[in-house]
Amino acid sequence: MKGIRHIGLLTDFGMKDAYVSEMKGVIYSALPDAVVIDLSHEISPQCVVEGALFLERFWEYWHIPLIVIAVVDPGVGSERRILIGRDKHKLLICPDNGLGTFVFQRKHVEVRCLRKVDLDWERVSKTFHGRDIMAPLAVQIANGYDLEKLGPLVEDWVRIRIREPKLEKDLLLGEVLYFDRFGNAVTNIRREDVGIRKMEFIRIKGKWGKIPFVETYSDVDTGSALGLWGSSNRLEIAVNCGSCKDKFRLKVGARIEVYLGTN
Amino acid sequence: MKGIRHIGLLTDFGMKDAYVSEMKGVIYSALPDAVVIDLSHEISPQCVVEGALFLERFWEYWHIPLIVIAVVDPGVGSERRILIGRDKHKLLICPDNGLGTFVFQRKHVEVRCLRKVDLDWERVSKTFHGRDIMAPLAVQIANGYDLEKLGPLVEDWVRIRIREPKLEKDLLLGEVLYFDRFGNAVTNIRREDVGIRKMEFIRIKGKWGKIPFVETYSDVDTGSALGLWGSSNRLEIAVNCGSCKDKFRLKVGARIEVYLGTN
Amino acid sequence: MKGIRHIGLLTDFGMKDAYVSEMKGVIYSALPDAVVIDLSHEISPQCVVEGALFLERFWEYWHIPLIVIAVVDPGVGSERRILIGRDKHKLLICPDNGLGTFVFQRKHVEVRCLRKVDLDWERVSKTFHGRDIMAPLAVQIANGYDLEKLGPLVEDWVRIRIREPKLEKDLLLGEVLYFDRFGNAVTNIRREDVGIRKMEFIRIKGKWGKIPFVETYSDVDTGSALGLWGSSNRLEIAVNCGSCKDKFRLKVGARIEVYLGTN
Repeated sequence: MKGIRHIGLLTDFGMKDAYVSEMKGVIYSALPDAVVIDLSHEISPQCVVEGALFLERFWEYWHIPLIVIAVVDPGVGSERRILIGRDKHKLLICPDNGLGTFVFQRKHVEVRCLRKVDLDWERVSKTFHGRDIMAPLAVQIANGYDLEKLGPLVEDWVRIRIREPKLEKDLLLGEVLYFDRFGNAVTNIRREDVGIRKMEFIRIKGKWGKIPFVETYSDVDTGSALGLWGSSNRLEIAVNCGSCKDKFRLKVGARIEVYLGTN
Repeated sequence: MKGIRHIGLLTDFGMKDAYVSEMKGVIYSALPDAVVIDLSHEISPQCVVEGALFLERFWEYWHIPLIVIAVVDPGVGSERRILIGRDKHKLLICPDNGLGTFVFQRKHVEVRCLRKVDLDWERVSKTFHGRDIMAPLAVQIANGYDLEKLGPLVEDWVRIRIREPKLEKDLLLGEVLYFDRFGNAVTNIRREDVGIRKMEFIRIKGKWGKIPFVETYSDVDTGSALGLWGSSNRLEIAVNCGSCKDKFRLKVGARIEVYLGTN
Repeated sequence: MKGIRHIGLLTDFGMKDAYVSEMKGVIYSALPDAVVIDLSHEISPQCVVEGALFLERFWEYWHIPLIVIAVVDPGVGSERRILIGRDKHKLLICPDNGLGTFVFQRKHVEVRCLRKVDLDWERVSKTFHGRDIMAPLAVQIANGYDLEKLGPLVEDWVRIRIREPKLEKDLLLGEVLYFDRFGNAVTNIRREDVGIRKMEFIRIKGKWGKIPFVETYSDVDTGSALGLWGSSNRLEIAVNCGSCKDKFRLKVGARIEVYLGTN
């Protein structure tokens, strides 16, 4: 994959500290023509699930050569491995902690585990593998280094498990996975879980009123709750011009009930 | 306008979610040589006025070809239109909700309304026009697509109205438009509203003490309030090394009185 | 230093307002091929020390031509000078308020003071030197302007002083300099202050329990405190998967005691 110029960074580092800039320094110093793209540095600290769902969404919108370095890593410095996944155009470098789950699960993605022997471990800080291992590794790959030499294919990488929604007759039971910036509750219910059945209404945590399922925000009054298929094809509960999270004082994991009708 | 490489993004999406990265994916995948610039993704959620004032400030500092995609859009999915404004060097793509007001009001700016027929509406999500309409549109334009074919010139685009300050003899009455990061209160009073008259002092909400009008922060003690012409030529009330917003517990719309003298 | 393309920005402006984008406008308009890099805009408002420590960390990870414009500037508009420091590859443009301390202290760095006469002061806003002086200056330098003509070498630039840790027999007394995004307390104790002596344990503010010094986060239980050499070779006190700042309700300046053993 020689000649990759675009390198994306996804971290939970925030921008207040120098961490991200040090990684950019390592990359640009070795690849002056690189285009480094800040995907996000605002993943909640150490929240691997949030980072994994970000990568899932992002992945299908990029179609030219790209290396993503993803670092959300509670176990940095421990024995966890570093993985390199690749499909036709893209590579994902990340710790083996579940962060790559939804990318690695895709068809035609090969996952390798970095062989330690290739690194000058004396110079590697114990706490900043993003800068000292993953950024130099991205540089090496962009310069055409043979992936097969980096390490063997592996199948036993760590998976995040997201509970599947449960169907009980006319009731589909799901839960809140995370909240986006607007306070929308993104759930584990996907379009294919509902199939061709009609969604009558939605309830949150078995209380509160019936929430209508609509096509777009403006189908309900300002301040009212609604359910819709979000742009990632997951069911989202939102409040028109407001925050669902705040209105219903929700937390991750809150129970979502979808009442299905017959068509 | 063939050959535009620079594309600026202004949104209220924040960086925590994948929204911005998905837009970048659409753009870079079609234009690998693009230079995508994050103008801001921190506009307060759904606050169209804040976005419009940002664009007003930014617009005059850019003098080479540029396409700006601006998305602050409480009405996404409803029937509101998508506009394309252009002047000599720059294009602004945004929803027809007032966001482009201060750019479209400038001399020599032509505003068009996107014809729906040009889009593959089957593939367009109802809730993410930034990614599914505006980003591909920017790509099309950067590749040289003829603007005239996109849609007709329009004059009836939605305007934001900012109240004008009122002059009552020696008293100029204005209000707070928004607060910047430092807690400075930016007002609707512009340099030309005062003209050649002398500013004696300023009062906030008819109470608190007299606030001096000065040239720069260091003209008053640390912690003291001051008025000055901000870098955008609007009157700002600030606190030297502090937050005006916090000190006076101000909100948007708070009344600002400027006492004018005779020269 | 003709032909510099990379320009880094470090400010306390945040991204909510148009300030950063106006600076980018000035730079790209004059240098369409520039690569402008957001180092950080999240330095705490007017916190010069935080910005100076950021620059210290970042500086050694960049090895190709670069101009950094750094603006954290409580004294903007006053008589403080503008400095230009340079080493082999890099230039730092910043106000003379201590922000450049740890860069200018490095070997082989030359510091010049900008001569006022070179600027069209009529057009310079009193409050936004980043946009009106430093950005155009960076452009001029990137275009090959002779540094010697900008102003004389100076030695009397303002220095930030960070208190040195004190060694009292087996006790090394230091303090907290700042907190990073994860709530880690970064201290003024550097690896060379300890030398070859063994670190027995650490105490905070003379109370709380003994905190072990370890190699990496996972050496203690989740939720437990630890001390380690951070990626910048300063002693950091952290909490595994938590915030040291919150756990011990720490502030900048809090006393840190390191108990040294004999080897």
